[in-house]
Amino acid sequence: MTELGIVRRNIERAPADAADALARFGSATVHEAMGRLGLMKPYMRPVWSGSPVGGTAVTVLLHPGDNWMMHVVAEQIRPGDIVVAAITAECTDGYFGDLLATSFMARGARALVIDAGVRDVTTLKEMGFPVWSKCISAKGTIKATLGSVNVPVVCAGALVNPGDVVVADDDGVVVVPAALARKTAEAAARREALEAEKRATLAAGVLGLDMYQMRGPLEKAGLRYVD
Amino acid sequence: MTELGIVRRNIERAPADAADALARFGSATVHEAMGRLGLMKPYMRPVWSGSPVGGTAVTVLLHPGDNWMMHVVAEQIRPGDIVVAAITAECTDGYFGDLLATSFMARGARALVIDAGVRDVTTLKEMGFPVWSKCISAKGTIKATLGSVNVPVVCAGALVNPGDVVVADDDGVVVVPAALARKTAEAAARREALEAEKRATLAAGVLGLDMYQMRGPLEKAGLRYVD
Amino acid sequence: MTELGIVRRNIERAPADAADALARFGSATVHEAMGRLGLMKPYMRPVWSGSPVGGTAVTVLLHPGDNWMMHVVAEQIRPGDIVVAAITAECTDGYFGDLLATSFMARGARALVIDAGVRDVTTLKEMGFPVWSKCISAKGTIKATLGSVNVPVVCAGALVNPGDVVVADDDGVVVVPAALARKTAEAAARREALEAEKRATLAAGVLGLDMYQMRGPLEKAGLRYVD
Amino acid sequence: MTELGIVRRNIERAPADAADALARFGSATVHEAMGRLGLMKPYMRPVWSGSPVGGTAVTVLLHPGDNWMMHVVAEQIRPGDIVVAAITAECTDGYFGDLLATSFMARGARALVIDAGVRDVTTLKEMGFPVWSKCISAKGTIKATLGSVNVPVVCAGALVNPGDVVVADDDGVVVVPAALARKTAEAAARREALEAEKRATLAAGVLGLDMYQMRGPLEKAGLRYVD
Amino acid sequence: MTELGIVRRNIERAPADAADALARFGSATVHEAMGRLGLMKPYMRPVWSGSPVGGTAVTVLLHPGDNWMMHVVAEQIRPGDIVVAAITAECTDGYFGDLLATSFMARGARALVIDAGVRDVTTLKEMGFPVWSKCISAKGTIKATLGSVNVPVVCAGALVNPGDVVVADDDGVVVVPAALARKTAEAAARREALEAEKRATLAAGVLGLDMYQMRGPLEKAGLRYVD
Amino acid sequence: MTELGIVRRNIERAPADAADALARFGSATVHEAMGRLGLMKPYMRPVWSGSPVGGTAVTVLLHPGDNWMMHVVAEQIRPGDIVVAAITAECTDGYFGDLLATSFMARGARALVIDAGVRDVTTLKEMGFPVWSKCISAKGTIKATLGSVNVPVVCAGALVNPGDVVVADDDGVVVVPAALARKTAEAAARREALEAEKRATLAAGVLGLDMYQMRGPLEKAGLRYVD
Repeated sequence: MTELGIVRRNIERAPADAADALARFGSATVHEAMGRLGLMKPYMRPVWSGSPVGGTAVTVLLHPGDNWMMHVVAEQIRPGDIVVAAITAECTDGYFGDLLATSFMARGARALVIDAGVRDVTTLKEMGFPVWSKCISAKGTIKATLGSVNVPVVCAGALVNPGDVVVADDDGVVVVPAALARKTAEAAARREALEAEKRATLAAGVLGLDMYQMRGPLEKAGLRYVD
Repeated sequence: MTELGIVRRNIERAPADAADALARFGSATVHEAMGRLGLMKPYMRPVWSGSPVGGTAVTVLLHPGDNWMMHVVAEQIRPGDIVVAAITAECTDGYFGDLLATSFMARGARALVIDAGVRDVTTLKEMGFPVWSKCISAKGTIKATLGSVNVPVVCAGALVNPGDVVVADDDGVVVVPAALARKTAEAAARREALEAEKRATLAAGVLGLDMYQMRGPLEKAGLRYVD
Repeated sequence: MTELGIVRRNIERAPADAADALARFGSATVHEAMGRLGLMKPYMRPVWSGSPVGGTAVTVLLHPGDNWMMHVVAEQIRPGDIVVAAITAECTDGYFGDLLATSFMARGARALVIDAGVRDVTTLKEMGFPVWSKCISAKGTIKATLGSVNVPVVCAGALVNPGDVVVADDDGVVVVPAALARKTAEAAARREALEAEKRATLAAGVLGLDMYQMRGPLEKAGLRYVD
Repeated sequence: MTELGIVRRNIERAPADAADALARFGSATVHEAMGRLGLMKPYMRPVWSGSPVGGTAVTVLLHPGDNWMMHVVAEQIRPGDIVVAAITAECTDGYFGDLLATSFMARGARALVIDAGVRDVTTLKEMGFPVWSKCISAKGTIKATLGSVNVPVVCAGALVNPGDVVVADDDGVVVVPAALARKTAEAAARREALEAEKRATLAAGVLGLDMYQMRGPLEKAGLRYVD
Repeated sequence: MTELGIVRRNIERAPADAADALARFGSATVHEAMGRLGLMKPYMRPVWSGSPVGGTAVTVLLHPGDNWMMHVVAEQIRPGDIVVAAITAECTDGYFGDLLATSFMARGARALVIDAGVRDVTTLKEMGFPVWSKCISAKGTIKATLGSVNVPVVCAGALVNPGDVVVADDDGVVVVPAALARKTAEAAARREALEAEKRATLAAGVLGLDMYQMRGPLEKAGLRYVD
Repeated sequence: MTELGIVRRNIERAPADAADALARFGSATVHEAMGRLGLMKPYMRPVWSGSPVGGTAVTVLLHPGDNWMMHVVAEQIRPGDIVVAAITAECTDGYFGDLLATSFMARGARALVIDAGVRDVTTLKEMGFPVWSKCISAKGTIKATLGSVNVPVVCAGALVNPGDVVVADDDGVVVVPAALARKTAEAAARREALEAEKRATLAAGVLGLDMYQMRGPLEKAGLRYVD
């Protein structure tokens, strides 16, 4: 249960190899493999456009205009983690910049996903630290109120439990519960295997109408061709 | 009249040379040449920033969360076409990805313009297939309900009839009715011819105030200079 | 006091060297040095992503859909200025394109900051003229109604007086009152000097918790670590 | 075709009795009867909440911040008409207040539907003149640029041709092409007749699952009940 | 864990008396008593403004444009429940109208909270059935895809587990985990007891500065009074 | 100049009779009389719809999620004042509820205008205390950081100096600089005197086209009537 003023130190992370495997498929394929669940809202965009990232979630819950807990969560980062930051109310402030990025990278974080703003984005790109955020803002924050670390959070409309797998790329951010990571990776692999073949067929000029055998169902649904 | 469950196979396309001509001017000049009509809402943005595109519209009307008709419209694409996709209600789902792009390219489509989301955007860029959309989302869609193909549609606030010319670039997307394509291309050409000259004059330091002879009208309107 | 139909020719600009100094720090550091005041809303984004810009404000107040005063303000530009354009109501039209950019550059303007839309953005990038705007739109404007030049304006939520320093980069746009320019530059310099050191410490793996001595205050605030 | 600077005086209106009939069903039922087409965006809200209104469309196309054509359209109003006002770009200005409402009422207009703002809303309510709009704004407009009257317009995402039937109530605004008015009224009547019966069944505690015989299809689709 | 195609029949509801107690305090007081957690986004508004409502959550997860599961959830309603409806992606369609409201009322539902649109709002008000929603839309939905009932959902940014207490009024919607219901009701009662006294003191003209003894802390923080 | 940590006690208020006079005209007429300047963004809406309010501004600048200064501003209220609250960044929290309203009323405040959220709106209506705000939210705030009182602020896009006249009604909120209050009241009176006459003329069926003698200018601008 979500509570304030709490730092959970021991969380069960999804298996590292499953997280790595999921990262390779990208958010769209993983989201399909999940049965179309777990996607953050499409307003979450990469601050700079780069390669897909996957990792295990350490979560942090912050207050509007207050990034105190960002320093607390830094200590809980292990190599391979992605920090997922949720705010208790809508906020566009810049919670995170090059100093925190330096610290997060030193701890082995792979990325930050935050339902608010960040700043120093030119430097973040130069450092190669990936961030998905709601917006970009030069406005800094105070350090006055306790939030929590490694509690379940809702970030950009998606429930994230500590240890879940997060996959993020130019298409968005998707969350895979730790217990489903391996199964989802397998489903994604099957899905992707099929896609290569389909792509070749479509590139050869075969229509999806025929490849997916849609003509019958469309006719049955009442589709009429007119001249 | 817009109707559901209909595919019009024979549409009258604007002349190919007029479409090509319009593409060269860009959306801003074409929009001016149209008398400032036909522009889609400015939330329509290129998924990746590239060269201006122009082509003839094949239209498709879809339901929220349902991309079944994307496969139907694929068959109606002819080389030089741009697919214009409208949704019957607001939706941010990802209706289109690399597989459909492969199919559209194989049919000769020049671009997609969609009042919803798309995905696989990294791949779309690698493939060089241009897309203008409302947003980007990893969320896929179902195939359950009939829409229509090559009916008049309203896409991002603009009326598009099948066969109209669509011009899209980093400034936005503009629609030119087929019957006006040639006339508009001529108007755009005249406009652009004047612009080169104006640009040289302004670059030489002459003010627009003088070049456009605005000082009189401004004074008459009551403009006062104070120190 | 803001009034319509007025052009103030003689404005007191912030010292050029202070403006130049501020430009080097970037908007986030300057905003902190200002005590977190003076930032424009985060919807103001660079039309193309480039180097930070700083300069002295010449202001222009325009009506929705009317860019007549853009030509009037052009004459008031001196080398080192940034034009700050506010609109009397919400508008997304494209007030500014390559012709006006040519004129502004010929006058020595360093950038445009506008709470509305611009167009010809591909050309603006090629020309190297930086613009921060609310949106991009191919839609042009008319020339019918008087606004004012070099009056105080509210642009994207920030008050801008003629002669103020404007600093803009990928993090946003911040306004420094002319009278505070030198003092703010000094505060920003002190702030930045400290940051280099902090960055090295954090990169070495020291936590912000320890570097900033936060553990005591956090414990006092009631933070609990659980396993 | 939409063109600027045109007033069409003779338009073919949908039959008055069909318009009246449609008004009685409300926008939701009419929208269903239309096959779920013709609805304006849900941001269109009544300025004051009253009884459903239906009438025949006279259309007007205006420029941002300019309500000149509102006076031109007034002359084209006949008793039973609803004025549908579209803007060539996004605008929140208040195009319409108590004076124009007085004039529209004197001409027999039943309502105004406008994709922009209006003002004097307290007085509009006292006068009993219904308005659906995007927003409310005290800001007035100028009279400088020609638009058109009784051309096809796109208003809040819906195509409206002069003479179409417009039905508006607290659920939104729906447009019925004149040629479909009678047929749609009949379909709406059939639909409503069924609804009364369904309502009684549901009120008696029968579930939709049983009334619509959904249990089979749900089971077939794979729905599982767990404890 | 959230899964599709599942209906959980047996859920543990918060104690009815605790739910009733919480309803009396209103969302603002309950939210404070929760430590400022559990609030839905402020875009959730009552369709009609009435008395505060509290009840136990039965949850339903739906797809964009598809209300099939609304009929499935109806069967799971027990007297005192509030239906909380989440959508797997952003959608503004009208999922719920007078027929479903009739059915929900017959089952004893106290309200609907939905992160999408509803319709027939005039009738909903006449029926006295309270609804909090993201928007109002006349657009109906299809019945094609399985969602789930009584799984954890994220609705308007808040995590809702089946059986949680939901309190909704004109200030918004707050969710109290079932296990915290009684404790939160007690905290809210304490809070409210204090408020009556404070209100009397403030009404008598005593300042909050004095009543809360803020003058010292403000001075210590550096507040300066100037003339 | 705006600064943090400052309370100005002695401000020069606009003359009370001019403020009262302006209140009678309503925001639309006052905005016109001001030459269409000084209007807050149209997202500012009354929390409950009542009679127009006018008063003199006492201003307060707050931080996101922090309402400490609301208690400081309370002490500076004099009978006839309207509190204008600006936030240093975008925030939707509920800064103000029934307790603060009790205090403000006891001090003689006529209304609150706030570029953020408020709560206890049912009670505010019962108390008859008028509020214009960006949104409604049950979320409370902390008391940790200094802002300022009676400094110039930008509220919802409008510059407000302490002592300015604020006029608010169902059409929005307009700000009149103290030095212009009397002149604006006179201009508004002249404007309103003309309106009564115009209303009678229009109600009698005379068209604005004739009353304003627009037919000539429209013809000159090129308006064509077609059948």
